[in-house]
Amino acid sequence: MTSQDPLVTGVLDRWAELELPGEPWPFMAIASLGRLQSLLSKALDNCLKPFGLSRTGYFVLTTLALLPRRRGRLSTLGRMTMLHPTTVKLTVDQLSAAGLVERQPHPRDRRSSYVVITDLGLQRAGAVNEALSTADEGFLGVLNGHDKDLFEALTPLRLAVGDVEL
Amino acid sequence: MTSQDPLVTGVLDRWAELELPGEPWPFMAIASLGRLQSLLSKALDNCLKPFGLSRTGYFVLTTLALLPRRRGRLSTLGRMTMLHPTTVKLTVDQLSAAGLVERQPHPRDRRSSYVVITDLGLQRAGAVNEALSTADEGFLGVLNGHDKDLFEALTPLRLAVGDVEL
Repeated sequence: MTSQDPLVTGVLDRWAELELPGEPWPFMAIASLGRLQSLLSKALDNCLKPFGLSRTGYFVLTTLALLPRRRGRLSTLGRMTMLHPTTVKLTVDQLSAAGLVERQPHPRDRRSSYVVITDLGLQRAGAVNEALSTADEGFLGVLNGHDKDLFEALTPLRLAVGDVEL
Repeated sequence: MTSQDPLVTGVLDRWAELELPGEPWPFMAIASLGRLQSLLSKALDNCLKPFGLSRTGYFVLTTLALLPRRRGRLSTLGRMTMLHPTTVKLTVDQLSAAGLVERQPHPRDRRSSYVVITDLGLQRAGAVNEALSTADEGFLGVLNGHDKDLFEALTPLRLAVGDVEL
């Protein structure tokens, strides 16, 4: 391994110095959001591994735990996770194989079905949320002290672009 | 199409009402960051399409434009974009095929090479950054008024988890 070149820092000053077109802020905001999401994804993957869950799996389980009667359609889960329907279906198949969710026929629409969280799924989601709330190391430990602030800092922009309240 | 079920909202109240284990904040922070990143990615993809660039391509070009001598190693670009080395190499291959970057042999390390942005690449990056700075519609129009605030809101958490200054 050769020594690493330094990363680009001082973007604001460099941008002005080089008289690059446009403003540096969109790039900085995009870069900063992307880096944070990337770091969070890695930390979550590590945290979820011992629970046998993917990030999408965790997300679907917690969403189901919150829904009335602990159940939802695939389309609802898709809109909550903003994932492609195929990915949602695959995730539900995996959760189902692990006994964490079950499919129920929709009472009024034969072509549709509900996904219901099982007691085991509810326990699993609870164990993860407990672990996330008590993390004291690494990214998730730091997030633990910043989660409310982060949520509140993102809310004005999310609502301004038409996203849902949570 | 059947009518859509409502999304989960009022997470805070539901969580307390159902006495779910752990705190709701990590889930809410993770969900909110993920949704914002997902919305931003879609908006960026649409914005970049007429410029013939992928998100990674845009990111690599702007990074190169900011680096001393407008060049960097693949490893530096990888750390800036937080992408897998294979993805970085693929992106550089695509940019190179479009005449937006060139490879240069590294002067002291024969096994390594630099990626240099061409004049055409510099113009392309400039045009995108100009477009992002003047967007007045949709997500990117809204981001335009929030980009500095968003960057600043994310910085304390990014730095607390050991990420670089930008």
